[in-house]
Amino acid sequence: MKNYDVVIIGGSAAGVTSAITARKYYKEKSILLIRDLENVPIPCGIPYVYGTVLDPMKNLIPVNQMMTNSKIDMVISKAKTIDKLNKIITTESQEAFQYDKLVIATGSSPLIPPLPGVNLENVFSIKKDAIYLKHIQSKLSNSKKIVIIGAGFIGVEMAEECKKFNPELEINVVEMQEHPLQLVYDLEFCLLAEKALLEQGINFYLNEQVESILGKASVECVKLASGKCIDADMVILGIGAVPNIELAIEAGLEIGPMKGIQVNRYMQTSDESIYACGDCSEKKSFFDCQPSGLRLASIATMEARIAGANLFHLRRSNFGVVGCFSTSLNNKAFAVAGLTEGGALAKGYQICVGEAESINRHPGLMPGGAMLKVKLVFEKSTGVILGGQVYGALSAGELINAISAFVSNKMLAEDIATFQAGTHPALTASPIAYQLVNAAENAIVKML
Amino acid sequence: MKNYDVVIIGGSAAGVTSAITARKYYKEKSILLIRDLENVPIPCGIPYVYGTVLDPMKNLIPVNQMMTNSKIDMVISKAKTIDKLNKIITTESQEAFQYDKLVIATGSSPLIPPLPGVNLENVFSIKKDAIYLKHIQSKLSNSKKIVIIGAGFIGVEMAEECKKFNPELEINVVEMQEHPLQLVYDLEFCLLAEKALLEQGINFYLNEQVESILGKASVECVKLASGKCIDADMVILGIGAVPNIELAIEAGLEIGPMKGIQVNRYMQTSDESIYACGDCSEKKSFFDCQPSGLRLASIATMEARIAGANLFHLRRSNFGVVGCFSTSLNNKAFAVAGLTEGGALAKGYQICVGEAESINRHPGLMPGGAMLKVKLVFEKSTGVILGGQVYGALSAGELINAISAFVSNKMLAEDIATFQAGTHPALTASPIAYQLVNAAENAIVKML
Repeated sequence: MKNYDVVIIGGSAAGVTSAITARKYYKEKSILLIRDLENVPIPCGIPYVYGTVLDPMKNLIPVNQMMTNSKIDMVISKAKTIDKLNKIITTESQEAFQYDKLVIATGSSPLIPPLPGVNLENVFSIKKDAIYLKHIQSKLSNSKKIVIIGAGFIGVEMAEECKKFNPELEINVVEMQEHPLQLVYDLEFCLLAEKALLEQGINFYLNEQVESILGKASVECVKLASGKCIDADMVILGIGAVPNIELAIEAGLEIGPMKGIQVNRYMQTSDESIYACGDCSEKKSFFDCQPSGLRLASIATMEARIAGANLFHLRRSNFGVVGCFSTSLNNKAFAVAGLTEGGALAKGYQICVGEAESINRHPGLMPGGAMLKVKLVFEKSTGVILGGQVYGALSAGELINAISAFVSNKMLAEDIATFQAGTHPALTASPIAYQLVNAAENAIVKML
Repeated sequence: MKNYDVVIIGGSAAGVTSAITARKYYKEKSILLIRDLENVPIPCGIPYVYGTVLDPMKNLIPVNQMMTNSKIDMVISKAKTIDKLNKIITTESQEAFQYDKLVIATGSSPLIPPLPGVNLENVFSIKKDAIYLKHIQSKLSNSKKIVIIGAGFIGVEMAEECKKFNPELEINVVEMQEHPLQLVYDLEFCLLAEKALLEQGINFYLNEQVESILGKASVECVKLASGKCIDADMVILGIGAVPNIELAIEAGLEIGPMKGIQVNRYMQTSDESIYACGDCSEKKSFFDCQPSGLRLASIATMEARIAGANLFHLRRSNFGVVGCFSTSLNNKAFAVAGLTEGGALAKGYQICVGEAESINRHPGLMPGGAMLKVKLVFEKSTGVILGGQVYGALSAGELINAISAFVSNKMLAEDIATFQAGTHPALTASPIAYQLVNAAENAIVKML
């Protein structure tokens, strides 16, 4: 039996990042990474393999290279058991490894709803498995009518990419909510997202629930609770993910209310030699420490950097999920950090909102200019920022990170209104029209 | 004589922003803005009128529209005197206005060095005057060889734009320092800027000082102290700006060591009814409160938002110049916030530096990808961030604002290494490779 100072289970964003971080902080320790797949897709890149990158094998995390660079051993097999008492991991390849510290980064799997017909041929979920994703691609080539169930990020990004892959494809997206992305953005942004998708010829069945998937061997149509039937030769499920916690449960580790592996601020599980991070671990909100259902690669890597650095000496704490993420639909960015207006109200905050919109160049005639709209949400009596949303120019993808910095530092509207932003004619709005600053100023004036 | 609650002198970034801010916070007050030019250029946009926007009249601040929207009166004339005791302003148009509060936002003018030949025909500075800029444009049409004196922002941006305007134009840039932009970026970024300019066929005379400008009526050549002579039918001076403080001096207001109008944290001058903001006001560093020579439109508008809001009740303080700015050369962004490595060492800090470089898409094959390099500078014993520089993809224009937020919040390397950045395949680097976070992590590891 081989002996390692650190064993990490999982080869996606959290596993790889915790391994690299562990190596940076503990140069002398022996580290082993166990992963179950030869090829690990870049998780957020998965939709883009269909219409843009055109090959799932071109969307891989270079795990081998990264582990070699960091002098980390690897085993490609599925971890089978964890013996906490004796600190031993076994794998399906019949190997056993002794660990001093263990990191569980087993990720999540697509949620498969208990729908009649969900196991029919040509019904797919978005698994993080390049071979499976390649199989979807080949099926897509023969498809004429596709139904996507769920208009969250995966659903809308898959819809757009399938349309790029084959503009002739009929794409119908079924969503329980009234608008796409309704659980992540405020209504006005959801409407802009809906418009961006409709403009590309994607159809929606909103406010609709799927009752069953019908067909003989293969899917033929999707039946809605409203009685409508949508013809389909292919169905893609995009309704969320569930943490992979079987191994942790069998090992007797505590599980949290959101069905993630319970961890403390240091990313330690109920066994303090075992850490968990990424989609498999339980998350709490930055704002109120309540359980959070957000699962993002950027949260996974943040947690992995905490877990990896904390293995032998504690040095980092996880102050909870701010929630900063973005997408691009019809070449327009949609981004959010912290709480939306709806999210803040739902938690019970009294809020004040400020908005500002301007082209991201000055003068507006400068090439590459696009409209950029910022909405900021503040707690009303203190002026502390709770969150922000950005729509429009692709520079929103980085602008949202300034908002994430504002939120994580609990900045006041007053400080944001006098924030020293860098501006340039070819890169941003003018300093007079700069959206972040003006959105804060506009919120303050409402609070006077 | 007309009576106003607020009179503002100056119609560029600081004047306009202080006026709009004053209106937002003091809805009932009467406000007058006095400016001396009919058409006010967007200051940072000036170089771009030559090769990109192609007309100085298309690079104007819409002052009339903004003032009308904010119900602010206007006079187009030059302010002539300030009578502090009786609170009266007179103008060259022979008008007089009584004020309760006055804001001086008279800006800066190009520095004209006392060089022999500097008054020859076809020697220009970059005045914020659309008519004058149009005159430069028409001269440029007939020019074959141009010398730009100074390789700071204005010099290099003008060089690039003149080359775009006429690719046949011979452009020689003379600079006292060893590399362009040497006073604002660390060496490695200056070398990248130099390369970006050389690739466009722009020539440099570095480490060279101008001795005189020679010619009969019109410029014919520029003579360097080294003895070299550069043929030129046009010369552009880009060696800095001096605050316009004559009016303030005559009014007996205190002047600071950098020759700006002395102000306190509230932007009040030595007469507390008179505020000053923008290029004409004295600046202090955020880091050590020492006098700062930085003059940027984004600093001007920050100060104007403080001055405008503070006119009748103090509510904002100026904590000094962080210094956040950017440019774009050969379609590559160069951005800085806070102190460079060189700047921090010069102030006497012991520092630690971290760098990270990655393409701003994931996978890298996603369209629109470009390399993006981040360098962060930390105080060594505390880990507090002092500044950062970014090079490459144009998204650097907003990324630098996340760094500005880090600096103004005095964040620790540790917090930045676990910063929750939003990432997306079409917009940013991957969460594993995210440059800001990795630059901090790399700095920490060096500090261990």
